[in-house]
Amino acid sequence: MSQIWIKNGLFITMDDAKPTVRGHMVVTDDRITYIGEAEPQGLSESVETLDGSKLAFMPGLINTHGHAAMSLLRGFSDDQNLQVWLEQKMWPMEGKYVDQDTRAGSALAIIEMLKTGTTAFVDMYDRMDQVAQMTEQSGIRGCLTRGVIGLCSEELQKEKLADAIQFARDWNGKANGRITTMISPHAPYTCPPDYIEKFVQAAHDYQLPLHTHMSETIAEVEQNVRDYGIRPTFHLDKLGFFSRPALVAHAVHLHDEEIALLAERGVAVSHNPVSNLKLASGVARVPDMLKAGVTVSLGTDSAASNNNLDLFQEINLAALLHKGVSGDPTVVPALEALRMGTVYGARAIGQEGQIGTLAEGMKADFIAIDLEQPHFYPQTDIVSHLVYAASGKDVQHVWVDGRQVVKHKTCTFMDEEKIRYEAAASFERLLKS
Amino acid sequence: MSQIWIKNGLFITMDDAKPTVRGHMVVTDDRITYIGEAEPQGLSESVETLDGSKLAFMPGLINTHGHAAMSLLRGFSDDQNLQVWLEQKMWPMEGKYVDQDTRAGSALAIIEMLKTGTTAFVDMYDRMDQVAQMTEQSGIRGCLTRGVIGLCSEELQKEKLADAIQFARDWNGKANGRITTMISPHAPYTCPPDYIEKFVQAAHDYQLPLHTHMSETIAEVEQNVRDYGIRPTFHLDKLGFFSRPALVAHAVHLHDEEIALLAERGVAVSHNPVSNLKLASGVARVPDMLKAGVTVSLGTDSAASNNNLDLFQEINLAALLHKGVSGDPTVVPALEALRMGTVYGARAIGQEGQIGTLAEGMKADFIAIDLEQPHFYPQTDIVSHLVYAASGKDVQHVWVDGRQVVKHKTCTFMDEEKIRYEAAASFERLLKS
Repeated sequence: MSQIWIKNGLFITMDDAKPTVRGHMVVTDDRITYIGEAEPQGLSESVETLDGSKLAFMPGLINTHGHAAMSLLRGFSDDQNLQVWLEQKMWPMEGKYVDQDTRAGSALAIIEMLKTGTTAFVDMYDRMDQVAQMTEQSGIRGCLTRGVIGLCSEELQKEKLADAIQFARDWNGKANGRITTMISPHAPYTCPPDYIEKFVQAAHDYQLPLHTHMSETIAEVEQNVRDYGIRPTFHLDKLGFFSRPALVAHAVHLHDEEIALLAERGVAVSHNPVSNLKLASGVARVPDMLKAGVTVSLGTDSAASNNNLDLFQEINLAALLHKGVSGDPTVVPALEALRMGTVYGARAIGQEGQIGTLAEGMKADFIAIDLEQPHFYPQTDIVSHLVYAASGKDVQHVWVDGRQVVKHKTCTFMDEEKIRYEAAASFERLLKS
Repeated sequence: MSQIWIKNGLFITMDDAKPTVRGHMVVTDDRITYIGEAEPQGLSESVETLDGSKLAFMPGLINTHGHAAMSLLRGFSDDQNLQVWLEQKMWPMEGKYVDQDTRAGSALAIIEMLKTGTTAFVDMYDRMDQVAQMTEQSGIRGCLTRGVIGLCSEELQKEKLADAIQFARDWNGKANGRITTMISPHAPYTCPPDYIEKFVQAAHDYQLPLHTHMSETIAEVEQNVRDYGIRPTFHLDKLGFFSRPALVAHAVHLHDEEIALLAERGVAVSHNPVSNLKLASGVARVPDMLKAGVTVSLGTDSAASNNNLDLFQEINLAALLHKGVSGDPTVVPALEALRMGTVYGARAIGQEGQIGTLAEGMKADFIAIDLEQPHFYPQTDIVSHLVYAASGKDVQHVWVDGRQVVKHKTCTFMDEEKIRYEAAASFERLLKS
């Protein structure tokens, strides 16, 4: 049994029962076994202690949409039209990826996420065995899924679907449960309807959640209406997509009726504000979705359209952007933005009650923020500071599943220097090949 | 004579003649005396050297609008309507400030700015002697101005104007020229027209630039039209405001004709994207202003409406926001956003040719960024990374006027712990008094 006692810390729990605790937290193996103002009792003789007096502790952040391996393409194409970016820059480079590139890119992304306070991430890509291995090794929690583009022969479609199912079955529950899996047709505009239905069937067969891109751009919504006579939300609903727990990324262009349907079906949204701005996709109707009761979580999307994986920036921008665009400074208040990055993220990946809050019985996925910095003074309102003043660079320590994966800003299970070197080498090779 | 030779660095110069240099830079006293690929010749025997091989060097950032002392009110009021925020929260607290509070808040703001790479800042507040003293002591460059609200008796108006002029005359050129001054009626909606004209006259009398808030909210624009029959840009023009070098903060709500007039008169704008979003003021027409030839620089505004003073975030948001809102992913490309934070900032405060680029003969105001971090890999395009992936927390060293003011992330002339403590003490006293 391993046990750690964090003494005299400030805990931003995201737990409505005890929102802020100045006191103590005990982690026993992979779980939080005590949190409260009083000193804990009955601890193991071998308990380790940590002085929490200059730190704020909060649940680890949950990044609900990304493509980790694309971190190799960070800064490779910016300030371009979407089609140029995608068709002339991203796809040709991605087409040259071999296993080692996916591995190198995923490792680079994972260390960046861990160091900036993300303890769980959703990843949709291919060569997912590589991503899963890096997830296992690094200590991060991953909700992983093979994203399938279905614009190909029936034979290749079958092969890709089988690969997606095989991956999901092989890895679900692995690494002490840190790895879970989903089933993901890439998007309604890249998968024919009958092909999407096969993913829905697989999700039912293997009791898995579904994930896809939806309504990221106006152009794809218009195409959906041209091709199928209805908007993407209704299209997916008709194909049974929302008959399983579902997470849709982006959801920028929605009508009122679509928001109502997402709420009714319990569909979670991954809001990706930085990527949506950078690719000029638009501004999602987040205040309206929250008001309707839709679970809105946060994702970075890939480092090729962000260009970092610091979820604190998404939290910050979720709180800022919708005020400025709506003209109402009261929408998406600080605590709600912080929920989007934590507890709503947990709900979006079906792990509410396991991660996303600090409470007894929860998995010990949490981060420590260094409060002794000018931008956290005066220490008037720490929730406000975490949302409006912080960045991922303020993260000092990170624990996932009770294990310390970042200690004094350094990854404990990953060789950062080697990973940076290998990412650079992969990129050079991709450029030249 | 002091001399430093930075060896084997990557220099993002912002100088069109030599945009990127991998090589060497020499600083002699307060000036850059060499930058180039070849090793420098004829150096002083006492030259210090710095290994630049894992760092990127760029001009220090220039924050063209803020109220440093308001950092005491960081997180004191968020997610509120502007009137509640201003009238019920900010003004009552600010009304209780004494010299020590202005001093404590300004010191806190200055260390945050220095540590995040800002080497020059515009500050508009009162009790400006305190701000100037902290500017002098910290080593930062400041363009300082007493902001005057004129909604008071004629006697008090006279007194405030005299104070503003006295401050501007006393401190202009002080601290080896690091301190310059401006003349600032607070805003068209807080100063009657005849009072604004007195500031314009003073600016002519003492050959000083003018600074003010303009068109931050729709409400103030509408009020201006109601009160004076014209929009604020034309109103200020009519009062002679643009007959001296002028910097206007915010400029969110502008018609085409106003943008054209700002361009014609050579008026600089301080774009404050975070503050404008947080207070729900709106989104300034930055692409249109840039296209028209207006000098658009960047400001944080105060930590009470931001809530940090990291100008890298303004650079990032300037590049992201206008893409998403306009629907055009090519507007405000990375290099242009970086210019807004450096060379356009220098132009906005009348110091182009002195600061804002790295070139021989320029003042040695520059920063070093730690490149050995996952979010800067692969090192494909450093300008892109500085704009889309960096934050102020990546700043390792800072020099102003040839003196190192931040070394390994720590201020050299300021006692950070004491400043944090005094800021907290001031805030507690303000709360209770």
